[in-house]
Order: sequence, then C-alpha cells, then structure tokens
Amino acid sequence: MSDVLRDPLRPDILELIESRDWTTLRDVLREQPAADIVELLDVISETEGLIVFRLLPRKLAEEVFDLLPVERQNALITHMTGEEARAILQQMTPDDRTALLEELPARVTRRLLALLPEGQRSAALALLNYPEDSVGRLMTTAYVRIRPEWTREQVLDHIRRWGADSETLTMLYVTDERGKLLDDIRLRQVILADPGTKISALMNYRFAALRADQDRETAVREFRKYDLYAMPVVDSENHLLGIVTHDDVLRVEQEEATEDFHRIGTVRPLGVRFNEASVWLLTRRRVAWLLALVAVNLISGAVIGRYEELIAANAVLAFFLPLLIDSGGNSGSQSATLVVRALATGDVELRDAGRLALREIGVALALGLTMAAAVFALGWWRGGASVAVIVALAMVATVLASSLIGLLLPFALSRLRADPATASAPLITSIADILGVFIYFTIAASLLK
Amino acid sequence: MSDVLRDPLRPDILELIESRDWTTLRDVLREQPAADIVELLDVISETEGLIVFRLLPRKLAEEVFDLLPVERQNALITHMTGEEARAILQQMTPDDRTALLEELPARVTRRLLALLPEGQRSAALALLNYPEDSVGRLMTTAYVRIRPEWTREQVLDHIRRWGADSETLTMLYVTDERGKLLDDIRLRQVILADPGTKISALMNYRFAALRADQDRETAVREFRKYDLYAMPVVDSENHLLGIVTHDDVLRVEQEEATEDFHRIGTVRPLGVRFNEASVWLLTRRRVAWLLALVAVNLISGAVIGRYEELIAANAVLAFFLPLLIDSGGNSGSQSATLVVRALATGDVELRDAGRLALREIGVALALGLTMAAAVFALGWWRGGASVAVIVALAMVATVLASSLIGLLLPFALSRLRADPATASAPLITSIADILGVFIYFTIAASLLK
Repeated sequence: MSDVLRDPLRPDILELIESRDWTTLRDVLREQPAADIVELLDVISETEGLIVFRLLPRKLAEEVFDLLPVERQNALITHMTGEEARAILQQMTPDDRTALLEELPARVTRRLLALLPEGQRSAALALLNYPEDSVGRLMTTAYVRIRPEWTREQVLDHIRRWGADSETLTMLYVTDERGKLLDDIRLRQVILADPGTKISALMNYRFAALRADQDRETAVREFRKYDLYAMPVVDSENHLLGIVTHDDVLRVEQEEATEDFHRIGTVRPLGVRFNEASVWLLTRRRVAWLLALVAVNLISGAVIGRYEELIAANAVLAFFLPLLIDSGGNSGSQSATLVVRALATGDVELRDAGRLALREIGVALALGLTMAAAVFALGWWRGGASVAVIVALAMVATVLASSLIGLLLPFALSRLRADPATASAPLITSIADILGVFIYFTIAASLLK
Repeated sequence: MSDVLRDPLRPDILELIESRDWTTLRDVLREQPAADIVELLDVISETEGLIVFRLLPRKLAEEVFDLLPVERQNALITHMTGEEARAILQQMTPDDRTALLEELPARVTRRLLALLPEGQRSAALALLNYPEDSVGRLMTTAYVRIRPEWTREQVLDHIRRWGADSETLTMLYVTDERGKLLDDIRLRQVILADPGTKISALMNYRFAALRADQDRETAVREFRKYDLYAMPVVDSENHLLGIVTHDDVLRVEQEEATEDFHRIGTVRPLGVRFNEASVWLLTRRRVAWLLALVAVNLISGAVIGRYEELIAANAVLAFFLPLLIDSGGNSGSQSATLVVRALATGDVELRDAGRLALREIGVALALGLTMAAAVFALGWWRGGASVAVIVALAMVATVLASSLIGLLLPFALSRLRADPATASAPLITSIADILGVFIYFTIAASLLK
C-alpha cells in the first residue's frame, strides 16, 4: 500500500478476502482510492481479483480498470461477460482502448470491437491502423476543439456542454472550418481573459504539433523540449487528428528506456513486464545473442591458439591475459553505455561523433596509463622488466582501441539506421577480447624475440 | 530545427549571425518560437549565444531561459549584469530557480540570492534546504489554494486575480484555515459545475500526496500510479508545502534512468550532460571501477595459475576457456540487467526474489543446455569425447551459477540499501570469470585423471 495515503486498510481487506466475507468487503472497497485497489489486485490471485473487481461500484470499477497495466486489463476483460466488457470499453479514452486492443489476441479484439457502438468502433479501427510505435497509436480523439471567432463565454459554455468526456481540458485547440489546426490555447488563458474577449485576440499562431506517422520517441523529445501538458497530432496537411497527453509520454519514456536497457544487456525487448515473463519467453529473448557471442568468442580462442607456443614458453603471459582483455572490454563498454544513452536522450547527435572521438582518445589515454601503472608493477614482480613493459604497453593500446570502438560503434549503427543499443556491453567486450589478445601477443612476440 | 514547426528559418539565422547583422537578426528572432531559439543556442558558440540572448525581447528571453538545460542557464547567468540576472531570476518558477541555484558555484549562488527580493530569497533558501534528490527540491510554491466554503464563482474570480503566476491551474488545492490539505480538485470540475456550486459539494476527501522528504524516485512512481498532472507535497502533519508538476517528473525519470544506465556500465553518475563532460571528469568517473575490476580479475588469474600444469598437459583446454567464462558472464549480466531495471521501475520488489530465482533456474538450464549442445560438438572435434563432456558440463554449470548471481546480487544490494545497479554488467562478468575458471578446471581435473 502506498505510504502517501492517509488510511491504509489493506490488512483488513486481505482478511476479508481470506474469510470470503463479500458483503463487508464490498462496503470497505467502495471507500478505497482506485490506485490502492490497483495495488491490491497486484497481490491477490487472478480469480480473487475478478471477484474483487465485480464487487466495485460501476464508476470505481472503471477508474480502477483505467489504471491497471495492459496485461492485467487483458486478463480481466477476457473473463467478462459481453455486457460488462461493453460498459468498460465504452468509458475508456480512445488511446487507452487502443493500447488494450492491440495487446489482445486477434480473436478477442474482434469480439470486443463488435461490442462497441459504430462511432467508437471506427475510431478504434482507425487508431489501430497506425504503425506500432507511432505517435498515432498514442493519440486520444477526445479533446476540445474551438473556433477563432468564439468569445470567452461561448468557449466556457461549449466546454460545460461537451468537455466532460475529453481527456484534457488544459489545452484547447483552435481550428478553421476545414479542421486545420490554427493554434493551441491554454484553458487558463481563457479563464484569465476579460469577459467578452474573442479567442482570436488570444491567438499567436505559434504552436508545436506532432505528426501521426512519427516515431513515438519523437513525442518524448518534443514534450521535453516544449514542457507541455498535451500536444496536438496532425496529418501531413495540418488537419487536427487527436492529441497526445503527458501521461502517455511518461509511459513511453519508461518503456523505451527499459528496451534500451535490455538491448545493451543483450536481452531482446520482452514486450511484457519482467515479473510476468515466462521461462520460455525469457529463454527465447536471451538465447540468440548468447549463441552469437559464442561464435565471436571462437575468434579470440583461435587467435590464442596461434600463440600456443609463445604461451608454453612464457607461462607468465597467460596470467595477465584475462586481466588485459577484460580491462579493454570494461572500458569499451563504459564508452558504449555513455554514447547509447546520450543518443537515446538526444544529448548527442551523429554530427558530434568526430569531436567526441577526439575527447575519447584523451580519456582512454588517461585511463590506460593509470591502469598500465598498476599492472607494470605487477608485471615486474611476476616476470621482470620485459614482462612489465609488455603488459603496460598492451594495456594502454587495448584500452585505447576498445574505448574508441565502444564510442564509435553506436554512432555507426545509428548512421546505418540500426538501434545504437545493439552495441551491447557483451558485444563490445567480445570484440575487445579479440583486439586485446591480438595486441598483447603481437607486442609480446616482438619484445620477447 | 524541429521538423514539427511550420516555417524553419534557421539557415537564415545562422547567416545573419555569421555576417553580424544584429539589427535584422533581432527582427527575425522575435518571430521564432522559444524552443527553436533554444535549439539555435545549442549549435552556436557561447559568445554568440550571449549576443543572441541579449537581442531577444524581455518576455521571449525569459521563455527561452526557462527551456534551457541547467548547464546552459548556468553559463548565461554568470555572464549577466546584476540587473539582467535579477529580471531573469524573478520570473522563474521556484522549482526551476532551485534547480539553477543548486548547480551554480556557491559564490555565484550567494551573489544571485542577494539580488532577489526578501520573499523570494527566503523561499529559495527553504527549497535549497531539502536534501538533494528529495521531493522538496522539485517543488514549486506557485499553486492555487482554495477553501471548501467558496463558491464556483469565488474560485474563478480568485484564479483570475491570483492565478496568472501559478505554474499549473489544472489542479486546485483545498486547505483548511491552518493550511492542512483537505482535497485536490480539477479546474475542469469547477468549470463544469453549475453556477453557485460550493467547493465542498465537489470534494471527496480522497487525494494522494507526496512528502517533501521522500526520494524523488517516489514521485515518478506515484505519478505513474495516479496518472496526474500535478501532485501536492505535504509535511508530516499534512500541511501543504507546494506541488510537483508532470514536467519535472519526466525530467527526473529520464535522469534516473540515465544514472542507472551509467551505473550498470560502471560509470559513476556524471552530473552533467555527456556531450559537455570534460576529459578529466570522464576519467574520474570511469577509473575507480576499472581499477577495482583489475583487482577482481587478478583472482581469476590466480585460479588459472593454480592449473598451469593441467593446461600445459592439455593445451586444448585453453582454447575453450574464454568462450566458457564469457558465456557465463554474458548470461549473468543479462539477468542483472533485467532485475536492475525491473527494480527501478517498481515492476519487481524484494519479496519477489525467491520466486524469480526459481524461474531463473529454469531459464538458465534452458540456455545452458542449448549452449552446451553447441560447444559439445566443437569440443568433440577439437579434443574428443572427454573434452566434449567437460566443456558441455562446465557450460551448463557456469551459466547456471552466473545467472543466479546476476539475478540475486541486485536484490541483495537493494536489501542492504545500496543501489541495485552497482551489480554492473562488468562486475557480474568478472565474478562469473572466477566461477567459470574454477568450475571448468575442477571438472577437467576430475575427468582427465
């Protein structure tokens, strides 16, 4: 239970569920904030959840349903009767309905679409037609549209009559008679204006809009840039199609960060919450990269194989091998991590690659020299002066080469329109291994001759 | 320039700056949206930026300043005259002002605080008194506070008179005469209510609030849970102190994700944008973990050292060593990545550790067996049946052990109130190396005898 609410009742509720005292439970539940019932549903079984949900008064049930994660909505709605499902679906905002429908099996989606009245069905189908991960999928079509010639009072009247359904009343959208977007206006501007003011007097014709076919990551970037509550979505001819609100953007930002997080750890995006992923799903999402990296590792194995005689003659070299190649891998994956995240947040762009590579040379030399100093002493102690020189030189060269690859590979992937996060820490580590082995034994072979 | 705006003028602007035609530039600039001028400042030099900023009309300059990242604000304001700085500071909202002041050198902060009028100075000092990373630092004190006995018209009048300054008018906060928070009400509810309605008739006494001393990550979680525009912040006795708005939460979410991203890549949080970090800063943030991992790697080196005779007698064993330990490291860092992110988003909690460990055993066995099949064939080809059996067994055991450590270490750190992301991919990899070497040679020594 959230520690921010004043009167945590959960223990009682769990006891009531335990003792199957549905009448008392119904009375206690109707006093709870929706968000707390959502948390309750998280800790009880699916069957108990369905019972609890059915005990809620209609209005509260709708609020709770809206706040549930899509997988939970999915599980609930497939168990509802047609009548229950119709009631729930009809009150959802169009963007939330789209999010639910796109996650359901096609069979269930068809059944649910059939339950909607004509107008809502065609709106749902239209939204489902935008590509996944596009701005169009995030849109809600419930917003307030006004005209430049209206007065302040006409707008407030219009809102009173039609505004109850719309997801946000913070922003109002001014369009011409053909539906082209002319401006956005904050409701506060209208409220704060003198009585009788015309909307056109409040307009500055400056607004930012998203296009329905843009990637949803664009929405996050534009929201951060403009600090807005909601942004209008237009087609290529500037007709207003819908709006995207800040809560969807927070969700997208979190989902995209999670995907990048997983990718840089060589896990393909799960698509469901980690907590609810099955063994089979997790295995499939993880096995591909593990096998690919085995193949890459065979290359370093092969390079080591070429130097077996050198190692046999100088066994001390084997002692320093893991240390050298891991250090290269670690500094390379540091660089990759920094660049992948900076590209994702828009902090750096492709054109910065050259300048950042120069800076990286400075950083990598500083890191390499520090670590070389540490291994130099160790090398001297284990194998004398020549080994000390070999491991120190190899350390500087390996850290330098790996850091540059870690920095540049995400840029290169981005240039090729691939996901920069494909330059995962393990991939960089494996590439650094090959480089490290090669550099180390080349230096050793030439100095020990 | 953003591709969502209708009339991109940047090329002209850059030419005007080049040719130092300040008069024309001033006229062109005043037509630009603030967000586009922010982008412009990003591509021109600091000196040019200062000139451009001084050419802007006062109102637009303030808008632009508000949208700039804190480091940029920092650079600009330290070059302003006292009068310029005073004007800019006074119009900032309290939370943005706090963010700026806390980033400046103490000397500059003192100078700027002295420029503020008494009321604003004490508010700024109060906000700066909350711990860094606390909800208190995110607060703005500009919000609308109403009373239960007011009517709809009194509220709208009050907003018209006092609301122009407040950061959000979407939510109104109902307090009693001693400043205790009683409820939150959406402005839309007031607008949609019938004329003459009393506020108390709209109240349900159900609201969610943050406490000023809570960690700012709590704010992100509560915002996601309640889908709100703004949340009130109270002290331990429920007095209303301020509000946190959704734009701050989006920024915090992005900053926290970046910090976790960096930590799991063994980079200590930078504190500035990657694009603007110096060589010296980057080196300091990266070197500590690299040196620590060298120390960890020495352990695997030492273990290998103990088996030098076994390797000398069976050189083929060396060929499979990097492959085995890297596979363990990779699957372990996959698990750690999944858990660290799931803990950060609140998707899993400490109590899930046991159940997830059981599931992880299933996943790790599936992964280990798949990869064992691949290396079994390879082992047979390079070293015959006994080597095939050794590498296959070692693969399953290493992947299993590493995956479990990758899964459990973040939980353990979280339990000890350390940051779970300290279980970085490279740390898990180094631990997996030690385990892998030990498992491999133990199996090899017993089977080859």
